[in-house]
Amino acid sequence: MNTTHACEHVISAKQFNREQLDRLFQEAGRMPMYRRLLERPLNGKIMASLFFEPSTRTRFSFESAMMRLGGQVISTENAREFSSAIKGETLEDTIRVVSQYADVIVLRHFEQGAARRAASVSEIPVINAGDGAGEHPTQALLDLYTIQTELGTIDGTHIVMIGDLTYGRTVHSLSMLLTNYRDIRVTYVSPPQTQIPAHVREEIAAKGIRVVETDDLVKAVQDADVLYQTRVQKERFPSLEVYEEVKGKYVIDPHMMEHLQQHAIIMHPLPRAGEILPEVDQDPRAAYFRQAKNGVDVRMALLLKCCL
Amino acid sequence: MNTTHACEHVISAKQFNREQLDRLFQEAGRMPMYRRLLERPLNGKIMASLFFEPSTRTRFSFESAMMRLGGQVISTENAREFSSAIKGETLEDTIRVVSQYADVIVLRHFEQGAARRAASVSEIPVINAGDGAGEHPTQALLDLYTIQTELGTIDGTHIVMIGDLTYGRTVHSLSMLLTNYRDIRVTYVSPPQTQIPAHVREEIAAKGIRVVETDDLVKAVQDADVLYQTRVQKERFPSLEVYEEVKGKYVIDPHMMEHLQQHAIIMHPLPRAGEILPEVDQDPRAAYFRQAKNGVDVRMALLLKCCL
Amino acid sequence: MNTTHACEHVISAKQFNREQLDRLFQEAGRMPMYRRLLERPLNGKIMASLFFEPSTRTRFSFESAMMRLGGQVISTENAREFSSAIKGETLEDTIRVVSQYADVIVLRHFEQGAARRAASVSEIPVINAGDGAGEHPTQALLDLYTIQTELGTIDGTHIVMIGDLTYGRTVHSLSMLLTNYRDIRVTYVSPPQTQIPAHVREEIAAKGIRVVETDDLVKAVQDADVLYQTRVQKERFPSLEVYEEVKGKYVIDPHMMEHLQQHAIIMHPLPRAGEILPEVDQDPRAAYFRQAKNGVDVRMALLLKCCL
Repeated sequence: MNTTHACEHVISAKQFNREQLDRLFQEAGRMPMYRRLLERPLNGKIMASLFFEPSTRTRFSFESAMMRLGGQVISTENAREFSSAIKGETLEDTIRVVSQYADVIVLRHFEQGAARRAASVSEIPVINAGDGAGEHPTQALLDLYTIQTELGTIDGTHIVMIGDLTYGRTVHSLSMLLTNYRDIRVTYVSPPQTQIPAHVREEIAAKGIRVVETDDLVKAVQDADVLYQTRVQKERFPSLEVYEEVKGKYVIDPHMMEHLQQHAIIMHPLPRAGEILPEVDQDPRAAYFRQAKNGVDVRMALLLKCCL
Repeated sequence: MNTTHACEHVISAKQFNREQLDRLFQEAGRMPMYRRLLERPLNGKIMASLFFEPSTRTRFSFESAMMRLGGQVISTENAREFSSAIKGETLEDTIRVVSQYADVIVLRHFEQGAARRAASVSEIPVINAGDGAGEHPTQALLDLYTIQTELGTIDGTHIVMIGDLTYGRTVHSLSMLLTNYRDIRVTYVSPPQTQIPAHVREEIAAKGIRVVETDDLVKAVQDADVLYQTRVQKERFPSLEVYEEVKGKYVIDPHMMEHLQQHAIIMHPLPRAGEILPEVDQDPRAAYFRQAKNGVDVRMALLLKCCL
Repeated sequence: MNTTHACEHVISAKQFNREQLDRLFQEAGRMPMYRRLLERPLNGKIMASLFFEPSTRTRFSFESAMMRLGGQVISTENAREFSSAIKGETLEDTIRVVSQYADVIVLRHFEQGAARRAASVSEIPVINAGDGAGEHPTQALLDLYTIQTELGTIDGTHIVMIGDLTYGRTVHSLSMLLTNYRDIRVTYVSPPQTQIPAHVREEIAAKGIRVVETDDLVKAVQDADVLYQTRVQKERFPSLEVYEEVKGKYVIDPHMMEHLQQHAIIMHPLPRAGEILPEVDQDPRAAYFRQAKNGVDVRMALLLKCCL
C-alpha cells in the first residue's frame, strides 16, 4: 500500500472521529452539485465493485455515486468464482490483481475481517461494503448523516432503535458512532429474544450516552426524535406463534404515528418486510427512502476522499 | 412521481397514437448522429437496468442506447435477489430505492403488470422491457419502426405474420400498433394449433384492418410487403411428430424467397431456432439484423424523451 | 465483416509476426499516458464483454483497458442464457445481433474455435478472450510483453517453464510466440505426468529454439532469465500421494530464490494455488502482479488498434 493512501481505506465506522464525521457530512452535503456539472472530478477513474455475495442495493448505491462523480465501474455481482474450488485464489491475490485494474475497490465479502485483510495488501484504497458478521461502515455513516440532515443536529437527540437489536449490525455500528456526539439518549425497544448485547449497551453508556431498555414501543415513541426500525427475523424465535405475536407489537403503523412528534423521523436500513406499513410511506416523517438517497451522497464524499 | 415526468413512462404500446409514433420515428432516425458527437445529451445521466429475469439481448440494446447518448448504466443481470425469501422486498420498495440512484429505470419482470406497478411509485421514468405475459412495448415499436425505415411507409402495406400467433406477444402488440395506420392488410399464417386469438383479430378488424387467416404460406407470401416470422414452440403440440410436420411447412428458405417480392422484407424478433434458414441471411430482403440495430435507435429516442 | 476491419480480429497468437509484435509492444508502452488525459481516443465507443463462462480476472482487465481509453462497456458475466435450451440461438446469430450494439466484441467461450466462428460473421472486430481448449492470445501477448518490459529484451533470453506443461494453454502459446525471437533457450521443467507435448517441443525446436526437458528445477533455475510457473492440477495424477510429492518439488520458495539470478524474474498467469509461496511476493524479482498490470496495457493497445 502506497503510504500516501494509507489512511484512506474505509474499513470500520470506528476509524472516524467527530471532526472527521463533521467534515465528511459537510462534503456529502455538497455532492448534489455534481449532478449539474459536466466536468466531473473522478473523470477517468475506475472503481471495482467486488461483491463476493450479491447485494444489489449497496452495489447500485456505490456505482451510482462513482458515476455521479464522472468515474466508471467494473463490476461483478457474484465474485465467488474467484474463490472457487477449481480456480481457488486467496482474497489477498484477488485484491492484488484487481489493484492493477482500478483506482478504488468496493468490497463486499461473507467473511468477517475480509476488508482489513484486503486493505493490508491493496495498492489502492479499499472501501468495506460489508464483511459478514463484521462491519458495514458506509451504512452506519449514511444513517448518521440522515439524522444530521433531517434534524439539523445529532447532538441532543433521542434515538429509539427497534427490533432485532441482538444481530442487527447497523444498530451496533450506529450506536458506537453516536458516542462521538453530546447529550445523546438511546432507547432500545425489543422483545426479550432480541435485546441489545450487554457489551454494546455498556460501552456506549461508559462513553456518556444515556441508555434505556424497554419492550414498550408506544411509550418510547412519545419523546423520540428518531425511530430506527429494523427487521425481526423469524429464525430468532422458538416458534412461529411467538414470532407472530412479538412482530405485531413492534410494527409502525398510522396509529403509532399519532404518538410521534411532528419534527421526528422514521428510519430503516431496508429492505423491510412488514415492520413499517406502506400506509406510513406518505407521511413526511417517513425518511427511509430519503435515507437511501443520502447513501449516494455519503458514498460520493468517501469516494472523492479516496480517489483524489 | 414528479408530475412533469408523469407522461414519460413507457408501459404499453397502446399509449402511443399516430402523431406520437410519427414523432418518435422521426427522432429515432436522427439518433445515428450521436455516434459522431463528443458532447452527448445524456452526459451525466444514469440508467438502472433492473432485470428480474435475464434477457441479455434486450438489456444490451438498452444499455448501448444509453451509452450512445453519453449516459452511464448501473446494471443487474438477475435481480431476483431483491425479492428473495430472506431479503424479501416488494417491487414497489425496490423501485423507490432505485429511484434514488438513477435517472431512468428499465424494468424487465416476470409478472404481468409489474411495469405499471413500478411506474405508480417511481420518482423517475420507468420503461417496460417486458413484464411476463404482459407487454414488451419497445419491441413492438422497433418492429414498426423497421417497417417504416425499410419500406418508407407503413400505410398501405401488407404484413404477413407467421408461426406462433397464439402466444407470441410481439405479434399481438404489432397488430394493435398497426391500427394507427391507414389501409393495412394483415395475413396470419399458422397451423391450427397456434392461431391468432379471436379477440385480437376482431379488435383490429373493427378498427379497419383487412384481416385474412390461412395456413398456406406460399400463397400469402406472394403479395406480402413484410414477412414477420416467429418461433413455433414444441410444447404447443400434442406430439413431436405433429410439431416436426408443422414446423417444416413454415420455414423460410431460399425456395420461399423466390415467391417474395423484390421490395419486401423479412423480419423476426429473434432469437430464431430454424424457422429462417441461414442461407437466407445474405439476401438483402433479410432485415432481421437491421431490425436489431433499429432497436438501439428507437430506444435512444425513448430514453432521450424520458431523461431530458 | 467490413473489409477495412478484416485484419483487425484478434483470434490467435499465431497471427502476429515479429514486426507486429514490436509495434504492439511499443504501443502498449505508451498506454499509461492515457491515465493522465481527459480527452480519450475511444470516447463514445462501446465494447461488449460476451463471456459464455465466467472469468472475472480477464473480463476486468479488458473492461479496465476499454475504460482507460474513454470507452464504455456492456457486459455479461455469464452469457449461457443466449444459448439456453428455451431461447436457443447459434453463436453466429448472437454475434450478428451484438454487432449492432457495440464497436468491438470481447468473446470468452467454452468451445474451441468459437472465436474464429464469431469473427467470420461479425460486422465489428472480435477479440478472443479464450475459447475452450483453443487459444487465449491476449494472455500470451501480455506474457511476452512482460518479458520485454522487465528484461528490456526477449532475444537471447533463457525461459524456464514449470508445472503443467501438457495442458497449460498459456505455456504452449508463449512457446510458439517465442519462435519470433532470436537466440532463445527454453527449458521445460515438469514431472513425467505433465510433460510438454512432443509436437510443441519439436515445432519450436525446428524454428531454432534450443529446447531442454528436465525434472530438476534447481538446476534449471540457475541460469534462467525467466521462471514461468504454472499450476499443477490434482486430477492429472494417479493418486493424491503422487500429486503431493510432485507438487512439493516444484514450489518456488525463498530457498529457490537464492539460486535465481538477480536480474531474473518470476512470472505466473494466475491464479496460483501454492506453487509460489507468499513469502516470495516481496522479492523485486516477483513479477506476476506487474504482469497483471501489463495485461491492461497490452489490451489497451489491441483495443485501440481494433476500434480506431
